Amino acid sequence: MINWKNLDTLASFEKLASLEKVNLAKAMSGEEGAERVKKYTAFMGAEMDFNYGARPVNDEILSAMKAFAEEAQLHEKFEALFSGEVINTGEKRLVMHHMTRGQLGEDVVVDGVNKREFYLEQQKKFTELANKIHNGEITNAAGEKFTTVVQIGIGGSDLGPRAMYLALENWAKVNGYFKMKAEFISNVDPDDAAAVLKNIDVAHSIFVLVSKSGTTLETLTNESFVKDALKNAGLDASRHMVAVTSETSPLAKSPDYLAAFFMDDYIGGRYSSTSAVGGVVLSLAFGPKVFECFLAGAHEADEIAREKDIFKNPAMLDAVIGVYERNVLGMGTTAVLPYSQALSRFPAHLQQLDMESNGKSVNRFGEPVDYATGPVIFGEPGTNGQHSFYQLLHQGTDIIPLQFVGFKNSQMATDVVIQGSTSQQKLCANVAAQIVAFACGKDDENKNKKFAGGRPSSIIIGSQLKPKALGALLAHFENKVMFQGFLWNVNSFDQEGVQLGKVLAKKVLAHETDGALKVLSDLMNI
Amino acid sequence: MINWKNLDTLASFEKLASLEKVNLAKAMSGEEGAERVKKYTAFMGAEMDFNYGARPVNDEILSAMKAFAEEAQLHEKFEALFSGEVINTGEKRLVMHHMTRGQLGEDVVVDGVNKREFYLEQQKKFTELANKIHNGEITNAAGEKFTTVVQIGIGGSDLGPRAMYLALENWAKVNGYFKMKAEFISNVDPDDAAAVLKNIDVAHSIFVLVSKSGTTLETLTNESFVKDALKNAGLDASRHMVAVTSETSPLAKSPDYLAAFFMDDYIGGRYSSTSAVGGVVLSLAFGPKVFECFLAGAHEADEIAREKDIFKNPAMLDAVIGVYERNVLGMGTTAVLPYSQALSRFPAHLQQLDMESNGKSVNRFGEPVDYATGPVIFGEPGTNGQHSFYQLLHQGTDIIPLQFVGFKNSQMATDVVIQGSTSQQKLCANVAAQIVAFACGKDDENKNKKFAGGRPSSIIIGSQLKPKALGALLAHFENKVMFQGFLWNVNSFDQEGVQLGKVLAKKVLAHETDGALKVLSDLMNI
Repeated sequence: MINWKNLDTLASFEKLASLEKVNLAKAMSGEEGAERVKKYTAFMGAEMDFNYGARPVNDEILSAMKAFAEEAQLHEKFEALFSGEVINTGEKRLVMHHMTRGQLGEDVVVDGVNKREFYLEQQKKFTELANKIHNGEITNAAGEKFTTVVQIGIGGSDLGPRAMYLALENWAKVNGYFKMKAEFISNVDPDDAAAVLKNIDVAHSIFVLVSKSGTTLETLTNESFVKDALKNAGLDASRHMVAVTSETSPLAKSPDYLAAFFMDDYIGGRYSSTSAVGGVVLSLAFGPKVFECFLAGAHEADEIAREKDIFKNPAMLDAVIGVYERNVLGMGTTAVLPYSQALSRFPAHLQQLDMESNGKSVNRFGEPVDYATGPVIFGEPGTNGQHSFYQLLHQGTDIIPLQFVGFKNSQMATDVVIQGSTSQQKLCANVAAQIVAFACGKDDENKNKKFAGGRPSSIIIGSQLKPKALGALLAHFENKVMFQGFLWNVNSFDQEGVQLGKVLAKKVLAHETDGALKVLSDLMNI
Repeated sequence: MINWKNLDTLASFEKLASLEKVNLAKAMSGEEGAERVKKYTAFMGAEMDFNYGARPVNDEILSAMKAFAEEAQLHEKFEALFSGEVINTGEKRLVMHHMTRGQLGEDVVVDGVNKREFYLEQQKKFTELANKIHNGEITNAAGEKFTTVVQIGIGGSDLGPRAMYLALENWAKVNGYFKMKAEFISNVDPDDAAAVLKNIDVAHSIFVLVSKSGTTLETLTNESFVKDALKNAGLDASRHMVAVTSETSPLAKSPDYLAAFFMDDYIGGRYSSTSAVGGVVLSLAFGPKVFECFLAGAHEADEIAREKDIFKNPAMLDAVIGVYERNVLGMGTTAVLPYSQALSRFPAHLQQLDMESNGKSVNRFGEPVDYATGPVIFGEPGTNGQHSFYQLLHQGTDIIPLQFVGFKNSQMATDVVIQGSTSQQKLCANVAAQIVAFACGKDDENKNKKFAGGRPSSIIIGSQLKPKALGALLAHFENKVMFQGFLWNVNSFDQEGVQLGKVLAKKVLAHETDGALKVLSDLMNI
């Protein structure tokens, strides 16, 4: 029997909050520090480990966290989710993105449709499309191969797929998996589409229009932009476009598209990278095999997230520690810092994933909660960030928990030795050094050069950023966010907060405004 | 006589903090809201206005803010800064970036050098270089024109110039100013340099190596990468590289470079976009005239920042309101939300500018302060953000002040009409709508669909994102950050917080570690 209870009604949370806090600077020093880093680690799948030696925990706190996770029924709630319970209560929907990448749990049948088969069928369909485009069975009207794929979508139809593409682009290039360059058009700013269209060869481009509802205004506007460009080039748009949408959308059976691939209401936009939303563009860019490996990695992390034992379940552990930092230690922001240039847009994806999922003020029953929920998430790749905002992270007046990601090996295997070490070694040395610098700090007579320390972090250490590792990394954070939603008792799968702006923007365009909105509209020359 | 005092010792701050707070949802509604938006505006230079109608102020609070700015001597401190006072006390340095773009104040002579003439001379030198490269007087060894410029730098030598380049790239393309494509190599991650080098034609590329000290490890490592690539292509590296550095650096007189351009210790990295650090790459990319216009815009905003009257000084006003939000209202994060795809990396630049400048815990005398200083800064372009993290901004449990930027006209002037409006109109309508949605909110019986409102924002409204507007926009934020540093009484021009990580990374590479750092080094395979 599952109980959906507010965080502040759980006795185990009260207990956890009452425990003496860790002095991280002390705990991470000397032999104790070495022991922590050795001991506080959990396997994440795909040759990756989650190391939480520098998070503000100790054995006593961890034991209380275990009880907290149990009282909050994190394991049971996840089981219920993938077994077909209506977890998205606001919209009365199932949450099925895990099924796009594997075999968790039993089959789930909705309205006579076996969802596992449905997702597999879509994957099969876009695998075929990719193969036919790669082998020249599907070409442009002149019989020439397509060389570029352009995704048109916004939010979850853009950030996740774009971050995943960038994460694998260079790896694919040096390993023989690179099939087509991908570009992305997202913003309603006309300069976005115009700039992309200026830089590509439209005659050899295939466009992937992504909108679940088929009514996303930004996306339809950008589609029109693209159709104009194709028309102006004397091309038949319907030979250059495919759609990713829901079966009930106006796009689903339109003759405007070469093909349509389906998602459904049970895949939230920000959780859709492993569905056709990410699958079409990634399969075209790198081939279906690469996409399969990516799914396999996500599935491996999903299986690990099913573990009942929190100490073998890094997503659950990361979630509980994060809530502790947010609600017990009062830290309102989290930085995501991948030491990998290929993950340049991964923080932007996590920003959506996390903030759109858990940036809520009411619980899953629509009742206001009395505690802080989702934090602000931001980040940039290291070592770049070290020369930028790390100043505040080290010496600012607020403490910001940090989530590092690092890989032992580079993607392209081209390197140079300077001052006795390779660039990859320097990269790895820097992330190791930062963890200790943040945790332990350093005293100095000159207080301007003093580092207080006590700044918590964890690190995900992988062997190399390959498709499988990327999938596991993505799923880790998806599952972490889900577990945190369970702890805060919010619905992590709706987004009512985006509606009001849409409604008011329509009024502005219809010139149905008064008061401040009318003045602002005039100032913007609308 | 200038007094450097802590924020919490100022009577005017205490007064400001004691005033009744604005009910923003109410104030921004109806006729009062319309009046606020009309009234609360200040000219920023370069056809731009700073509108603060939706910030949490009213006439009474603004009047107290004026007194606060006066007691904190913001005007006098800025005058002292550009007149040559040692404002960077920690490093005992002048702060001269304003002089790279204009004629503020009198000449300043340091060690016999007239600094204004020095900066002008550097600008003249790289103007000549750009002209000679553009007209084919300087070519590669084969006598062919250079087509690409690659900046090698990190932190301030990367983020600002990159953000400025992206901001103008498409505008330049459609207006006949585009001379050369620019690329950037920054990260010590070997994949960063390898990926850029894979995508360019090195034989027709000129590289700009930027390091003030000439010893930045990341940058020297990446230089070596580039030299290897040039050598492997059978090219003479010294014909393909220029340096931007200080006169005393090891790079200054090296025969390895075609030319060297100088900055000095009085230009902080994060304030260096208007010096040779930004000037060489931007002049090469768009021509010296475009760079001059950019400087003219920055200078115009600097002149406005000299205004004694806070209500005619948007940078000062923005600064004071920001401190009020941070220290009186307790808001710890600020989002920067440009409704312009061309400003995609502008928030990342501001993140460095702001967080590295004011993320400090000691005042300018090295004494710990008892109040919060610089906030976390993050942001992405709208409308993209609306489909991502805006959920938390609208309905999350923390209130995040917002800084919008919007332009009435697009850069590329290609547009499409869908549902009765252009994309540009949709873009503008959205930002206007968001301001009112955040401020006023909306009640709903279903609490999940309720928007509490009361979320403050301001908007900078420009005519079009052109070089002059970009310069003014950049200077606005530089000056805002400077004024906030004065209010918090911190030194905004040093960055001691980046040192400890560097020291520890060197130890890791030298295998001189123990405890947690040794274990982490082992885990990372160093």
